[in-house]
Amino acid sequence: MTLTLPDGTAAPADAARDLSALFDPASVAVIGASNDQTKYGNWIAVQALRGDRRRPVHLVNRRGEPVLGRPVHRRAVDAPGGVDLAVIAVPAAGFADAVDDALAAGARAIVGITAGFAELGEEGRQRESALAARIRQAGAVLLGPNCLGVLDTTSGLRLASNDMPAGPVGFISQSGNMALELGRHLERDGLGFSRFASLGNQADLTAADLIHGYTAHDGTELIALYCEDFGDGRAFARAAADAVGAGKPVVLLTVGAGQASMRGARSHTGALTSDLAVIDAACRAAGVDRVASVAELAHLLGALHRNRRGGGRRVAVIADGGGHASLASDLAEAHGLVVPEFGASLTSALAAELPPSAGTTNPVDLAGAGEQDITSFGRVLDLALSADEVDAVLVTGYFGGYGGYGEALANAERATARVMAEHVRAHGKPVAVHTMYAERPAATELKDQGVCVFGAVEHAAGVLGRIAERSERPAPRVPALPNPAAPATADDYWTARELLRNVGLPFPAARLVHTEDEAATAAREIGGPVVLKAMGLLHKSDAGGVALGLADETGVRAAHADMTRRLAPPGYCVEAMADTTDGVELIVGVRRDPRFGPVALVGLGGVFTEVLRDVRLALAPVTAAEAESLLARLTAAPLLHGTRGRPAVDVAAAARAVEAITAVAAAHPEIDELEVNPLLVTPEGCLGLDARLVLGS
Amino acid sequence: MTLTLPDGTAAPADAARDLSALFDPASVAVIGASNDQTKYGNWIAVQALRGDRRRPVHLVNRRGEPVLGRPVHRRAVDAPGGVDLAVIAVPAAGFADAVDDALAAGARAIVGITAGFAELGEEGRQRESALAARIRQAGAVLLGPNCLGVLDTTSGLRLASNDMPAGPVGFISQSGNMALELGRHLERDGLGFSRFASLGNQADLTAADLIHGYTAHDGTELIALYCEDFGDGRAFARAAADAVGAGKPVVLLTVGAGQASMRGARSHTGALTSDLAVIDAACRAAGVDRVASVAELAHLLGALHRNRRGGGRRVAVIADGGGHASLASDLAEAHGLVVPEFGASLTSALAAELPPSAGTTNPVDLAGAGEQDITSFGRVLDLALSADEVDAVLVTGYFGGYGGYGEALANAERATARVMAEHVRAHGKPVAVHTMYAERPAATELKDQGVCVFGAVEHAAGVLGRIAERSERPAPRVPALPNPAAPATADDYWTARELLRNVGLPFPAARLVHTEDEAATAAREIGGPVVLKAMGLLHKSDAGGVALGLADETGVRAAHADMTRRLAPPGYCVEAMADTTDGVELIVGVRRDPRFGPVALVGLGGVFTEVLRDVRLALAPVTAAEAESLLARLTAAPLLHGTRGRPAVDVAAAARAVEAITAVAAAHPEIDELEVNPLLVTPEGCLGLDARLVLGS
Repeated sequence: MTLTLPDGTAAPADAARDLSALFDPASVAVIGASNDQTKYGNWIAVQALRGDRRRPVHLVNRRGEPVLGRPVHRRAVDAPGGVDLAVIAVPAAGFADAVDDALAAGARAIVGITAGFAELGEEGRQRESALAARIRQAGAVLLGPNCLGVLDTTSGLRLASNDMPAGPVGFISQSGNMALELGRHLERDGLGFSRFASLGNQADLTAADLIHGYTAHDGTELIALYCEDFGDGRAFARAAADAVGAGKPVVLLTVGAGQASMRGARSHTGALTSDLAVIDAACRAAGVDRVASVAELAHLLGALHRNRRGGGRRVAVIADGGGHASLASDLAEAHGLVVPEFGASLTSALAAELPPSAGTTNPVDLAGAGEQDITSFGRVLDLALSADEVDAVLVTGYFGGYGGYGEALANAERATARVMAEHVRAHGKPVAVHTMYAERPAATELKDQGVCVFGAVEHAAGVLGRIAERSERPAPRVPALPNPAAPATADDYWTARELLRNVGLPFPAARLVHTEDEAATAAREIGGPVVLKAMGLLHKSDAGGVALGLADETGVRAAHADMTRRLAPPGYCVEAMADTTDGVELIVGVRRDPRFGPVALVGLGGVFTEVLRDVRLALAPVTAAEAESLLARLTAAPLLHGTRGRPAVDVAAAARAVEAITAVAAAHPEIDELEVNPLLVTPEGCLGLDARLVLGS
Repeated sequence: MTLTLPDGTAAPADAARDLSALFDPASVAVIGASNDQTKYGNWIAVQALRGDRRRPVHLVNRRGEPVLGRPVHRRAVDAPGGVDLAVIAVPAAGFADAVDDALAAGARAIVGITAGFAELGEEGRQRESALAARIRQAGAVLLGPNCLGVLDTTSGLRLASNDMPAGPVGFISQSGNMALELGRHLERDGLGFSRFASLGNQADLTAADLIHGYTAHDGTELIALYCEDFGDGRAFARAAADAVGAGKPVVLLTVGAGQASMRGARSHTGALTSDLAVIDAACRAAGVDRVASVAELAHLLGALHRNRRGGGRRVAVIADGGGHASLASDLAEAHGLVVPEFGASLTSALAAELPPSAGTTNPVDLAGAGEQDITSFGRVLDLALSADEVDAVLVTGYFGGYGGYGEALANAERATARVMAEHVRAHGKPVAVHTMYAERPAATELKDQGVCVFGAVEHAAGVLGRIAERSERPAPRVPALPNPAAPATADDYWTARELLRNVGLPFPAARLVHTEDEAATAAREIGGPVVLKAMGLLHKSDAGGVALGLADETGVRAAHADMTRRLAPPGYCVEAMADTTDGVELIVGVRRDPRFGPVALVGLGGVFTEVLRDVRLALAPVTAAEAESLLARLTAAPLLHGTRGRPAVDVAAAARAVEAITAVAAAHPEIDELEVNPLLVTPEGCLGLDARLVLGS
């Protein structure tokens, strides 16, 4: 699949665009700078001038009157020394002129604040495409239009409507308010942004381009996105996979889970919002963590920043009270962690530190040891982190509140926090602390020393669960699309069947026939009971175009006569009737998504697909190994391995079939949908029993 | 089922105990008052003395030295005017004497802080039971022992280690730290406790007793519990149902989700019934909301306090930005709400208030209207609340942050908050506001005016989802247990079958036989293919004790001979083979839970039970109407109504069967487990195909 941009040019290769002028320009011009405090041209000028010690900032305004007490230029080309980055915040009618002015002034980057383009419809999209092409031809980059600015705290660049806290997170967003909200969360956690770029309409620079830029940026340790429109979804996934491969986690917040958000997203940016299941398939391939809220985004970013090494699912819970110990254990298990009973050695080491009534087998309940000697927390944490049987630690409850009982205890609690942080650093295992006193000094000390602190235990358990899940993932791999094969020209069952047989997918013996006599002959040659299928019908069964279990020639002739009378199909397939005893029926399909290309779906057939929706998706083509993993993740997976006295089926053969089917679909960009349903999997192998093909319009 | 207390006395009736001395005593004595700041006797004395203007507070200490600068009595009986409530915080060895002293001084309520009883094992449990009996015989009540005190902000009683904020929530807890944490959450939300009681070991007063007391307490509007041990679970459920019926919501936080509580159960019903699933069944019967964390508890309490009327699932989302609009819509749908597209009338009314780029079809995106005129929020909220098509409103995003741009805007935003609150009160529909500025003045104004405000949109969506779900619930109904029937004395298939046939559950024609000749005769008399089942085996199929589809006498004789050789069972059942075509197989079981009594389980049989665990539980006995509701809640419910060309089955007959099966089990306290699996349901009715019975040991 080769995607083309709206203006008809080929999609740029994944090679990184030069974003140096966008994030660290030699000089800045704000075109449309204004004294009107209700306008972006004012807000951005205010922020821009805060950075004028780092680089020249020119205010540009057609009227030439002073703005914010500073002289302005009527045109960017008038700015002495030229302009490296131009922010354009003029009305839509003046945008094209402003772009020309900026390019003439030497701009290598343009930030288009101005709205009124693709988000209004096709005419706006065309104007926008033409402008983007002009900017690319001039060797420059365009962020936006219809965006809210750009910010780089590592280079002192502030070209957004609000200032944001500085920190390790590079943020890419289609919503300015989402950036403000994330910024508030991060700031409370002592973190902030290295970079923020507002995507706008992505007429030139896309989320993928910015991910590449952030991956190469030393000041960015983690990449966060709020994205509604993924553009070339495969390019997005490749960029994210590169970032993850380079050790920079990518966390995505997106919308589209429900129908209403699609309405909202469409009216917002004119985005073609992709189905969430497809986005999840892309995230899985790229190693991207998807979250469902800004708070969850902030929690995970903080946890990934402070726990770089990853870890397993076995968590030690340390509490100062039985209620908190039990609740944290429940929530840890709810988030996919296990709270294993400790071995004798660790239990007795803990018992030696704690009072007789303490819990020492996991969860650990200090049972008053904290009140008697606050330093117990440090020793207990060290013991838990030292144990091979512990992958991570969840501290929960009262720690952080002891200091409220007097200055001596407050000092001792802060000192204990420092000791705890030392143990966390020394062992390198993930640790999350929940305290009901998350805003008090001991909690701040923990955060300052690099320990994850949360005010709700479910958030602490949630991030530890995510970290454990991450550590079990395979390396990111976004499958490449094969070169296109000779296109399929028909969409009947026989065409689909032959396409699939050619790549080795077994089907029952069959003949393509027309007349009743041919059908009878075919049935005799095949032998045993047969199936008669009418060609040329997408949903053969529903239309009465399939006759099963025809025992002999007479039955075949009768079925042929009946279908000819009712359906008059262009032809028939006479096929051996498969023995479904001991078999499990799968559905394997590929659908071409307009953003993410071919996407594979696997599941058990029948009620499992239709009633329980127990299916898994992945970017196609899928390797046999990946297919086995998809099948293993089905809720109904135990049925493949033999339950209730049935034998296990040949999952490896099914996985090879998935590889073959998805490879064919990926090599045929003209095919919108290709589906084998059912794919019969038996203890001996697998067999396609029906197939369906939909050509693109 | 008649539960007995640990001391062997019968469980008290549900009639409310007199708790007046516990929550509003005429006088208080702290027995074990201390100057040692590491002891409860000190902490409680400090708190108690804060209330000494309301009622006399006597400090009691064996040594007779002044405590906290106040004179003490050596014994409670020395206190002038007697003692109404005694808090006992002496070492365990002195507890019994202190109880006698308190009772002699006239105490009608005793709060046992002292630990060292049932929590240490059987010997402690016996000492505790004896003390509780003594206190009950004296006409007094005991809270604890091993508890952390009691508090009533409406009567000025402070007998806990810490002070707590005052408010409408009555809290009952088995964890002191949980009370502190909930108190912090509530206080941030402008709320607090009317009463707090620490349950301790529940030697006398149980959670159920306290719920009854809170229900009758005018100052308590909502009842919250953190409970680990429910004691007589039916009494708990009845008390909660009474509270809910009286208009006081009951919200429960409990633990045990992660502990695989199979407890040696031998049938499938037993193995699938976890503690938490049983608790959820009780909550459903009683109309109790169960939450999974302290934060969730606080959020729901705040929302229920501020939204008393309830509402449906159709929510209007109001945002000032497309991103927040979409995200809130997704999260609303994730929490079970719908975000319907507005009709033309509401849409055009909104469009008249908002700029052209605004979203007006739901979600509503103000698209800058807030910046231009902050009062837009009030008008848009009023329009949404006025519409019949809207059950509830979720406001999300930036509102609350406008005031940061200057004092005039700050004043206008607070005024708008007041107008919004007026609309909320006037319409009475549930409203939840998310703002990224939840701690700023406009948000505080909303809260002060009785509007629910959250710092995370998922919390706002979550409580609206809960409120909608609550409004769809039937009235609380905790089923009464029937009088015991004549006990079953055997546990074989035939016994179970006859027990169920006697209450009208149909089974295939069958004969109970022993010899091969008898079996052959029975097969001939029954006619058609038959099944031979060996008696005396709990899992007949697994043991090879079931032979299906025996076509004639020869087959029956062969099967009989084979089973006799392998299994030598005490007898056989020869049964007509049922036609399972067009049928759906259910599992219907009842297990006796030691706390909650008989609990019913229904689900589809086979893989649906074993692999997908798609089952629903309810307190038994279950009415046919409740059984239909349980079946409707199964994920696989569509299979009952006919899918994939299969006919709908007789769900009403299945529901009547569930009623009959659960009624039998409830009337037989000697039966630990009773299960019909499969219960074949066809378009014409239903038929038990197998049954299991486990007698209590």
